[in-house]
Order: sequence, then structure tokens, then C-alpha cells
Amino acid sequence: MGARRPVIGVMGAGEGATAEACKLAEALGESVARRGWVLLTGGRDVGVMDAAARGAKRVEHGLAVGILPGAAGGASSHLDIAIFTGMGHARDAINVLSSDVVVACGAGGAGTAAEVALAIKSGKPLVLLAPDAAAEQFFRSFAAALHVAATVEEAMETVAALLARAPATR
Amino acid sequence: MGARRPVIGVMGAGEGATAEACKLAEALGESVARRGWVLLTGGRDVGVMDAAARGAKRVEHGLAVGILPGAAGGASSHLDIAIFTGMGHARDAINVLSSDVVVACGAGGAGTAAEVALAIKSGKPLVLLAPDAAAEQFFRSFAAALHVAATVEEAMETVAALLARAPATR
Amino acid sequence: MGARRPVIGVMGAGEGATAEACKLAEALGESVARRGWVLLTGGRDVGVMDAAARGAKRVEHGLAVGILPGAAGGASSHLDIAIFTGMGHARDAINVLSSDVVVACGAGGAGTAAEVALAIKSGKPLVLLAPDAAAEQFFRSFAAALHVAATVEEAMETVAALLARAPATR
Amino acid sequence: MGARRPVIGVMGAGEGATAEACKLAEALGESVARRGWVLLTGGRDVGVMDAAARGAKRVEHGLAVGILPGAAGGASSHLDIAIFTGMGHARDAINVLSSDVVVACGAGGAGTAAEVALAIKSGKPLVLLAPDAAAEQFFRSFAAALHVAATVEEAMETVAALLARAPATR
Repeated sequence: MGARRPVIGVMGAGEGATAEACKLAEALGESVARRGWVLLTGGRDVGVMDAAARGAKRVEHGLAVGILPGAAGGASSHLDIAIFTGMGHARDAINVLSSDVVVACGAGGAGTAAEVALAIKSGKPLVLLAPDAAAEQFFRSFAAALHVAATVEEAMETVAALLARAPATR
Repeated sequence: MGARRPVIGVMGAGEGATAEACKLAEALGESVARRGWVLLTGGRDVGVMDAAARGAKRVEHGLAVGILPGAAGGASSHLDIAIFTGMGHARDAINVLSSDVVVACGAGGAGTAAEVALAIKSGKPLVLLAPDAAAEQFFRSFAAALHVAATVEEAMETVAALLARAPATR
Repeated sequence: MGARRPVIGVMGAGEGATAEACKLAEALGESVARRGWVLLTGGRDVGVMDAAARGAKRVEHGLAVGILPGAAGGASSHLDIAIFTGMGHARDAINVLSSDVVVACGAGGAGTAAEVALAIKSGKPLVLLAPDAAAEQFFRSFAAALHVAATVEEAMETVAALLARAPATR
Repeated sequence: MGARRPVIGVMGAGEGATAEACKLAEALGESVARRGWVLLTGGRDVGVMDAAARGAKRVEHGLAVGILPGAAGGASSHLDIAIFTGMGHARDAINVLSSDVVVACGAGGAGTAAEVALAIKSGKPLVLLAPDAAAEQFFRSFAAALHVAATVEEAMETVAALLARAPATR
């Protein structure tokens, strides 16, 4: 894997994101960058995606990559690299495969549920940050090992532990 | 849309499918074919996918299409058409886009949850057949209109009503 | 592979197709269906795709499948099954993987060149029907075995021979 | 587009790449990085992809991104960011969409031909570096504007001119 740094995928709602989820995402993006990890998001200029990238870019040498659903345009202004897939939700599978650990930020709705389910299905290390009770209960019903964190700090500790344990996706 | 027949996507567990879910899927596939609709599944030779195709092929002129994750091989022996995508779970998005109505059969686990969430996210008409309580509660928390059926007959009535109402995906 | 019939992918130009290429495509689609094979195209309502499907549907029990670039709409009115990928040109790879033999119809331009090159790269049996001299010379420069046919009848004989020889993509 | 830097996609052969093509690719990758542009490749650890990334990483702050066909593994050791698509050749479309200018390095064979054709089809600015005569003649037969360069320096001048002229893919 050469000198590649760990890639942390932060997933969450777009247009429907709550202010609370965006606040968490921004702190999460900043923390990911401070640890020297690469931030990967769905790349759009809204919600959790945009907030996480904004946080990462507040850090010197922070690196934010976005995997976008569209063929052009719509990218967060806080990205270093925008990958345009032109394949809509099919790109969710790329986000999961390309992350060493996935963090779902906030309750999130249908889009986040799809990405969380995909991460579970793919056996990808996964942390739910501040999920609502229904989501946590539902995902626990079929995920053997599910990591839940109440705060950004707790999420980061869990990510660090998962990275230390798991082989990198290289 | 010329003479194209409605396409009903039946989603559910693969290796982990329960005997009960497979029994429902087989009856569902048969009912879809009897109404003259096309059955679309994830195409693999296991679980709900295989059972639904088996049911459809019990009907004369039944037509079963599978959209497979792999690049070759692994197809249900009950398919008329096997589409090999070679793109793993990214093909879930194709299944949802290509169905006029999606029916999730049984509780299903992570794979089914991903497809249900994707259908909701895409605004695709969706019926949950015999979901467990946690799944129903979770999806209801963010799906404006969610149709739940206890039996195959009830599911088919709902599908027919949704087809009558919704514009075809053409 | 159960009872699945061979799938013949017919590729060629869309908006830019010549009248001659469309005439060949229509005859090709009809011949494919007469032999009891399934016709697979890029599914759009223009050019070679549309003409081949029209030909196939002139035959009783002819079966025409289209793999479309869009997420909805734009399908040829002569298809039995429309698969909406929502992934633009990335769907070309699906067309190649899902065909037992690929036939490129006419000179075709950039889109056809991309599909022909992909078929060669994937080692898929391939027939060029009425290619122009530059195309034939170029593809011969890196394709170990390239089949070229001057007429639809010749192309069909080559397809039959390739199907007899090659293992089906199942 | 915020602070995003231009992305230059370098495409070419993998296992079959000639020593000459790899030498050009390495010089090209280095030149791309020296100008402060991001290098994008198919990401694998062979041929033109690997050589271009090696060149880019010889430059301080050079940034090399690879879009891989596989779901894990096989990445060049010279990448900063590896995007695992798990979708084989379908990822070629992502490479083209995500590049502001595409440079095809060397003659290249079927894989490169597919990417060049896709770039032409998509209207993406394209430079052929040291193509063989058959390739140049073939692509000229349907590409309205085709840029051909004999040396890396010439290719870089053309890329710079194309970037100045074309709107970024943002």
C-alpha cells in the first residue's frame, strides 16, 4: 500500500441533514484530517458531505475526496479531489469499497440507511455516530458487530481501534 | 413504451434467506407471471432470487430477468435473461431503476435493507411483504408512503393498485 | 445455464447511424430472433439499437432486451425488456458481459469503437459487420482473432460457429 | 470549483505496455505534478498507470489518484488516493468524466482504445501522445478535433492550452 494514508468515509444526509448532523460532520471531518487520514464523502455541496469536507479543509494538509453521483457539477467547494461517476446511487458501493472505515453521521434517512446496509453487507468496519434509536435497533438486528458512538471523540477512538485491527483496503 | 409489460422487482436475501421467505418468493414469482408481468430479481441461484424465478417459470410465457452482481456465472437456472453487470452491489441501483414496483420479500438482512432504502430514496413504489417489526418501524421513520402486505395476495393487490396509479418507468 | 437462450449483442451508432447501418441492423435483429436467440442492444430509440429491436420484434416469440444509459425514458418501443442503468457509458461494459457474441453493425463512430474495443479487451467473441477499412485495420492491429462479415447472412453463420465453439457466458 | 486543481487523466496499457510507453508515462506524470495538476490514472500497479503515478510522486506535493477496476488490492504503490470501484471496465467511464483533459500515452491496445473512444464520445478534451499511425488515422475518422503530440513537452503545452480554453469539469 506504499505511503497511502487510511481513508475514512463519512456518510450522511444531503438536503435533509439536520443542523446537528452537519455540526457533528464538520467536527468529524476536522478530526479525520488532524489525524492525517483522508476524508472520503459522497462529494455533494449539501448536508453532511459538504460539512465534513469543510471541516477537513480547515486542517493544513487535510485531504478531502468526494465521489459524486453526477457526471459533472454539484461538488462541494471544500474538496481536493472530485470523482464524477455519472451513476447516481450506484456510486454508494464505490464509497464503501474505497473507505477503510465508514462512519455514518446522524440518523440520515434513506440514503444513509442504504450506505450503512451496504457497509454491513460488505463486511466493512462501520461506526454509527449519534444514530437514532430505531436505526440502531434495526441495524443491530442483522449486523454481527456494530460500533455506536455518542460523540465525535468516541467515534474517532473507535475508528483508530478498527484501523489498527483491520487490514487496509489496499 | 410500446408493448412492454410492467416489471416487478422482487428483492430479498440470498444465502441467508429463510425457508418461509423462499416460499413467499416462489408464490410471488408465480403470481407476477400469471398476471402477465415481468419478474426482475438479483438473478443469483440462491434464496429469494432463485425461488421467485422458479415460481415465474412455472407459468407458461412467464418471463424472468436477473441482474447479476458478477461478470459471469452464478445465475439462477430459472431465468430467461441474465444480465451480467460485473459490478457487485452497484447493480442494486439498476434493479430499483428497472422495476415499476419493488417488492421486498421477508426480513432479509443487510442486502435487502440496502435495496429497500434505495427504492425509498429513489421514490420507487415499494411493497414490504411480511417484514419483521424492526424493519417496518425503521423504514416507516423516513418513508412517507410505505406499503406493507401480510400475504402474497395482498402484496399483488397493492402492486396492481400502484401500477394503475404510477406512470411506468419508461 | 438451464433453458436460457444465447444472447447476441448488436452494437452500433445511435443518432449518427447511416441508413445503410440501420437496414443491416434490422435484418440482423430479425435473423437473431428467427434463430431463437435473444437480441441485446443499448436500448435507445435511435439508430442501430432501435432498428435491431424492430427487426427482432417482427418475429413471433422474438425477444429484445435493451440496456439503457439513462435512469428512465428514451427506450426503443420495440423492446420486451428495458433495463435502466442510470450510468451512461459505464453500461457499455454490461452489454459486453451479458452477450454471448457481440456484433458491431456498421462503421459506427466513437460509441461503437468503445464497445468493440471493450469486447476485444474482455475476450468476448466479436463479429464486425460491414466495418469501414480504417476500423478493420485498426482493430486488427491488436485483436488476435477478429471476425469480419460483409453480409448479415455471413455474420449469422459466424455467430452460429462462435456459439457452437465458445462456452456460454453463464 | 473552489480550490480544486485541474485533473489530468493519463490512460494507457497495463500488462502489455511497452518500455517506451512507460518511459513517456513517467515523464508525463512528473510534468503533470510539476505544474500543480492532479494526476488521475486507472490505478493499477502495472504499465502506464503505475509509471505515471511513479513520476507524479517524484514531485513534492504531487498528487496521484487511481480509479481501480477491482474491489480491493492491485493498486500502484505510488498513489495517494486509491478509489476501488469493483466494476471492472465500467470504471473507464468514471476516469473520463473525472478528468479535465485526457492524455492517451502510447499505442495502447484495446483498453486504451476503449478509453480514447469514450473520451471522444463524451466530448472530453483529448491528447494522443505518440500514437501509432493506425490509431491516429482511425480516431481522426470520427473525432472532430483530435490533438496529437509527439513529445511529453508538446503534450503538456496542448493540455495547458486546453485547460485555459475549456470550462473545468466541476
